Amino acid sequence: MATNLSSREKLILASMARLSAVRNHHLTAADVKGNIENMIGAVQVPVGVAGPLKVEGDYYKGNATIPLATTEGALVASVNRGCKAITLSGGAKVRIFKSGQTRAPLMEAESHEAACRLLSYLHGHYKAIRKIAESDSSHLRLQKIDAHLYDGLIWLKITADTDNAMGMNMISRAAEKICLHLEGKVQGVKYLAVSGNMCVDKKPSRMTLEEGRGKSVYAEATIKGSVVRQVLKTTPQAMEKLNTYKNIIASQLTGSYGMNAHFANVTAAIYLATGQDMAHVVEGSHGVTIMKAKGNSLHASVTLPAVQVGTIGGGTKLPAQRECIRLMGIKEREQNASRKLANIVAAAVLAGELSLMAAHATKDLVKAHMRLNR
Amino acid sequence: MATNLSSREKLILASMARLSAVRNHHLTAADVKGNIENMIGAVQVPVGVAGPLKVEGDYYKGNATIPLATTEGALVASVNRGCKAITLSGGAKVRIFKSGQTRAPLMEAESHEAACRLLSYLHGHYKAIRKIAESDSSHLRLQKIDAHLYDGLIWLKITADTDNAMGMNMISRAAEKICLHLEGKVQGVKYLAVSGNMCVDKKPSRMTLEEGRGKSVYAEATIKGSVVRQVLKTTPQAMEKLNTYKNIIASQLTGSYGMNAHFANVTAAIYLATGQDMAHVVEGSHGVTIMKAKGNSLHASVTLPAVQVGTIGGGTKLPAQRECIRLMGIKEREQNASRKLANIVAAAVLAGELSLMAAHATKDLVKAHMRLNR
Amino acid sequence: MATNLSSREKLILASMARLSAVRNHHLTAADVKGNIENMIGAVQVPVGVAGPLKVEGDYYKGNATIPLATTEGALVASVNRGCKAITLSGGAKVRIFKSGQTRAPLMEAESHEAACRLLSYLHGHYKAIRKIAESDSSHLRLQKIDAHLYDGLIWLKITADTDNAMGMNMISRAAEKICLHLEGKVQGVKYLAVSGNMCVDKKPSRMTLEEGRGKSVYAEATIKGSVVRQVLKTTPQAMEKLNTYKNIIASQLTGSYGMNAHFANVTAAIYLATGQDMAHVVEGSHGVTIMKAKGNSLHASVTLPAVQVGTIGGGTKLPAQRECIRLMGIKEREQNASRKLANIVAAAVLAGELSLMAAHATKDLVKAHMRLNR
Amino acid sequence: MATNLSSREKLILASMARLSAVRNHHLTAADVKGNIENMIGAVQVPVGVAGPLKVEGDYYKGNATIPLATTEGALVASVNRGCKAITLSGGAKVRIFKSGQTRAPLMEAESHEAACRLLSYLHGHYKAIRKIAESDSSHLRLQKIDAHLYDGLIWLKITADTDNAMGMNMISRAAEKICLHLEGKVQGVKYLAVSGNMCVDKKPSRMTLEEGRGKSVYAEATIKGSVVRQVLKTTPQAMEKLNTYKNIIASQLTGSYGMNAHFANVTAAIYLATGQDMAHVVEGSHGVTIMKAKGNSLHASVTLPAVQVGTIGGGTKLPAQRECIRLMGIKEREQNASRKLANIVAAAVLAGELSLMAAHATKDLVKAHMRLNR
Repeated sequence: MATNLSSREKLILASMARLSAVRNHHLTAADVKGNIENMIGAVQVPVGVAGPLKVEGDYYKGNATIPLATTEGALVASVNRGCKAITLSGGAKVRIFKSGQTRAPLMEAESHEAACRLLSYLHGHYKAIRKIAESDSSHLRLQKIDAHLYDGLIWLKITADTDNAMGMNMISRAAEKICLHLEGKVQGVKYLAVSGNMCVDKKPSRMTLEEGRGKSVYAEATIKGSVVRQVLKTTPQAMEKLNTYKNIIASQLTGSYGMNAHFANVTAAIYLATGQDMAHVVEGSHGVTIMKAKGNSLHASVTLPAVQVGTIGGGTKLPAQRECIRLMGIKEREQNASRKLANIVAAAVLAGELSLMAAHATKDLVKAHMRLNR
Repeated sequence: MATNLSSREKLILASMARLSAVRNHHLTAADVKGNIENMIGAVQVPVGVAGPLKVEGDYYKGNATIPLATTEGALVASVNRGCKAITLSGGAKVRIFKSGQTRAPLMEAESHEAACRLLSYLHGHYKAIRKIAESDSSHLRLQKIDAHLYDGLIWLKITADTDNAMGMNMISRAAEKICLHLEGKVQGVKYLAVSGNMCVDKKPSRMTLEEGRGKSVYAEATIKGSVVRQVLKTTPQAMEKLNTYKNIIASQLTGSYGMNAHFANVTAAIYLATGQDMAHVVEGSHGVTIMKAKGNSLHASVTLPAVQVGTIGGGTKLPAQRECIRLMGIKEREQNASRKLANIVAAAVLAGELSLMAAHATKDLVKAHMRLNR
Repeated sequence: MATNLSSREKLILASMARLSAVRNHHLTAADVKGNIENMIGAVQVPVGVAGPLKVEGDYYKGNATIPLATTEGALVASVNRGCKAITLSGGAKVRIFKSGQTRAPLMEAESHEAACRLLSYLHGHYKAIRKIAESDSSHLRLQKIDAHLYDGLIWLKITADTDNAMGMNMISRAAEKICLHLEGKVQGVKYLAVSGNMCVDKKPSRMTLEEGRGKSVYAEATIKGSVVRQVLKTTPQAMEKLNTYKNIIASQLTGSYGMNAHFANVTAAIYLATGQDMAHVVEGSHGVTIMKAKGNSLHASVTLPAVQVGTIGGGTKLPAQRECIRLMGIKEREQNASRKLANIVAAAVLAGELSLMAAHATKDLVKAHMRLNR
Repeated sequence: MATNLSSREKLILASMARLSAVRNHHLTAADVKGNIENMIGAVQVPVGVAGPLKVEGDYYKGNATIPLATTEGALVASVNRGCKAITLSGGAKVRIFKSGQTRAPLMEAESHEAACRLLSYLHGHYKAIRKIAESDSSHLRLQKIDAHLYDGLIWLKITADTDNAMGMNMISRAAEKICLHLEGKVQGVKYLAVSGNMCVDKKPSRMTLEEGRGKSVYAEATIKGSVVRQVLKTTPQAMEKLNTYKNIIASQLTGSYGMNAHFANVTAAIYLATGQDMAHVVEGSHGVTIMKAKGNSLHASVTLPAVQVGTIGGGTKLPAQRECIRLMGIKEREQNASRKLANIVAAAVLAGELSLMAAHATKDLVKAHMRLNR
């Protein structure tokens, strides 16, 4: 019978019969409960470490070892060099300037008047609505509801603190409860969808750049002149100039929300190592790098509007991923665990920017890739 | 001595001592050669399968099984439902309408005249430059060089076919060769950096939405009325309306380049299963979903401007990842292997859109997550 | 001597000698005091009227005659048709949902800490700062100050009500007073410029689309089926479909903040007739048109985030311009005069959208232009 | 009877009865033929002159006097100072790097296959289509047709040279002819609208920033150190720094396509003086200003992607407007008249940027407005 199979079909059959590597993993059924359906096995991604990285954050203080899961040769080495430059210069200061997960359900009103009634009800019953929103989970704390109104369409942009969880499921449940309540109370409005794309979840968006979601984090360091010279092999002036041309001007000309060199590489590698939702790398690519020569020193900063990390829930409970979180000295359920992780992410992203920009300034990037990738 | 350690330091030390799960993996040194530095082990991510998905692509034709590496409960089940809806309706038509990797090095001219000289040299010596670009790799074929000029700054946006490799390293080497050549030949211009951020690599960008990079892929299916009803549990009219409000209008209002429901979820899961560069999920989140009721049927399409996949290089050579590629019936070095993979990615993304939009239209999303995630 | 002049120079000399049309105007020195320097005369632009347009606004109620200064043949006739369609259907409802002029001076801090000190001072002394802001003009009322912080740069986005004036001069003076005060009070911060481009004055900007400036106005009308047929010569379904493809989808694909057919034509013509600052046509081009078939009727709405009009100051005091304001039944210094004008602008823009979209739907545009322009 | 009138109605009636200033104008019926309907009179806007401005353009060479119609006090004086700074430093170099008017009609295909057939027909019959496009006007020369395809929707972006006319009417007629031809020849496609909003006419748009329309013009000047000091009263370093913060960084953070200080002010004033379509100020607000300290000198440049000017057609034939064109030494029908005008526009915009940025750097703006406006 198999003689009638095409060569492609034979390949598929053979693959499914074996899948020896896919099946050769350490995950138990308990490990992946709630994470996957139709499971056939697992893929494995190597983890390298960068650091120590001295972090002076508003939540995390200490010398962090950064686990990076990646298959891009030279990435770990590059972040490592950035960590060295920062740590030798006294560390990175990090501050979370905004925090709150978002979900924006969509409602439809039969008329603009009905839409206005909805806004008015929302305003007048905010306390009751907050109670409803918070009734499902002890971890969720409603922060605000912004209404965006166009014609008869209403997007309710709900912002909430979700504790140590990334929290999209938690806030989705709260959003649905709010909408069902409003639909029952305000005549002429219907609840259409729990996500109306104004969250903006897992999509590139200027609203994310401007308003942030998850943790909005700022990290900065002033790299000493000697360190710029010896570790980064370049000058503060060359770094400032290249940053302005590449990260600021070109990003504007291309309509990019990533005014940076490679935020996404570093967020992707930490997110994968620590069990985050990998589609949130999209948000993790947004943000701004600024570099300024200050005499002999180089002042550098990164602003990440949307670091999406949790220490509980999702993939964070898988055994190796949890170990990577603990490797940074974070206990997954301790107070502000997710904020500590966000502090480290931003500092590591800063390290990545410094090193890659230096590699560009010295035109060493291609050489480094050839040396390490082959 | 250890008595002086803080509790965080103790946690870190203990973690590093054990790392039992991180170390318990199947990767050999040969497997990860060129992929990682300072390796301490690996993380493992469960893989589920969706399908069969009937794909009528310009490169791939057949019923594909889709491997998805994710920890977001309900995602595999959702894509699977979308596959069912498409396959029962005769399959998805898929077409790659553009293909070419990009790298945009930055050069600086001492004057606008010098910049114009550069353009003129480029125009006059294109053949010789192509030869230089292609001298390093037998896999790279130069397609074009667009010059973007602002004041004395010149971004050379280089586009090349990179065969079955994703190809960023290959094209970076070619870009550097081109720039060094130009620097030598044209007076008054300097080569500043191999990437000037107009690629636009791993960043959200309108240029990517408009011009594409990697593979630009279109997939469409017409879902039969009975299938919309029985599999998606909704109506074509409800789907069209919700798509217009959520994916089109809201995306515009938020300045999003992701006029879709969740491209990033599906591209992230396939990319991780098949060893792609995870920072390319950023590009994989760009694109447009269009839905139209056609009588009883639902016509749906997705346009992905920037599918970044290879079947050789990077993480594709890791054992489980390679098995996932073969599971789809693709041999990693066969002709057009990466185009076949891009065909499947777009069809799977279409499946994901159909199922999630239906879950929104029927307000079943929160329930599904609660059923499957807990 | 003149024999050595080039033909161009002769042309210039001859022009300057005559300028008979430029010099043939009715403006007195008193008329243009404060409006112009090096004055050589004036240009004259014809004014046509559209209407009556029934406006049911939150500030203006009545049948308005719309003065339009333009040289684009067919524009007045087209707006006039839209007015007829609206008025025959019961009029346009108009609401100002936000109001406030903006100016965003730029300050620079010597460190991120100093920048944070600035924010903290601002928060702690808001009342005193408001008093300073309002000390210069009895017409200005401070509404809020938003601070945008990147690295050591701080943009203070100041929003204020400016009564019947468009108000940019008024708010610029207030902004400068605020910055000089802060510079004196907070150590380590310097006042750099009265406009740091986050206003965003006279530039296309997503921030303007999202946050608005000047008057943010919504206008809607439900056009009766018979009127759609007889006046607009099309169907609600054709209008909805074309609006979705042209104004919504295409605008998104091109990165346009003008999700409309031609807001700019109508705002430009009214602004010119009534003496507004013509560079504010830029803001007047932003906004969204939504059209929906509701049975036999057509529901249409426009959202203009940034109508920039005043009835006093600038060119509004020129004699013909003032007459155009009064022609609409607005006394330039009456209460809410500028809000009344903003109501009419939005209703007229709606009329313009209805008529042009109908001309497109019936493919009558080219014919109309040929009939009327030649 | 009049006793029953409201005070508003009385005001309107009285206004219409008089309209003495509106009616007191010099325009004859012949002057405004094809420009206006329902004409009641005219508005008059004062014109001031700036200059001489030394322009070394690819089309215009000479010392230009710039007519500016505006009611914003201080604007003419400011541009005049910029002209002085440029002329004392040897003039502005100006180059038109792209030229072509655009119109993008929308077609709809019954299927993606039909859409592909359309593209294929277009490709195969380009010469015949060009002939059709050019059959209506001896002034139009087709340059290219780009097709943008999403699902079954096709936008044909048509680019054409329109000689000395701004040319929107001309290209609209050509676009309609092309679409009617295609509709007749390709089965399964329908012509929907002559403008599908991808032109992008009179709307803010990234496509315009990237691709340009009308004339794309670059102007630069190197201002001598002594002139920076004595005329602009500032330093090259202060100008470069402020430009980077204000025009580059802030514009990116706000999603602005106007990376400049006030292009719109200058384009609006010249457009109004010379009879252009005032809604094109929208396009005239797009573009980039770059400033760099070069030792003691200041290098400054402006890139305007979309200068929309003609010397024939529209309002250019009105008597005072035509005199303003001739005042610059341009004969409206001479070869490249519109390109000469575009050269001057860009140089004047550069003058405006230099002076306003200097006023910001020295914090003289508010003072200047108070001195000149009151």
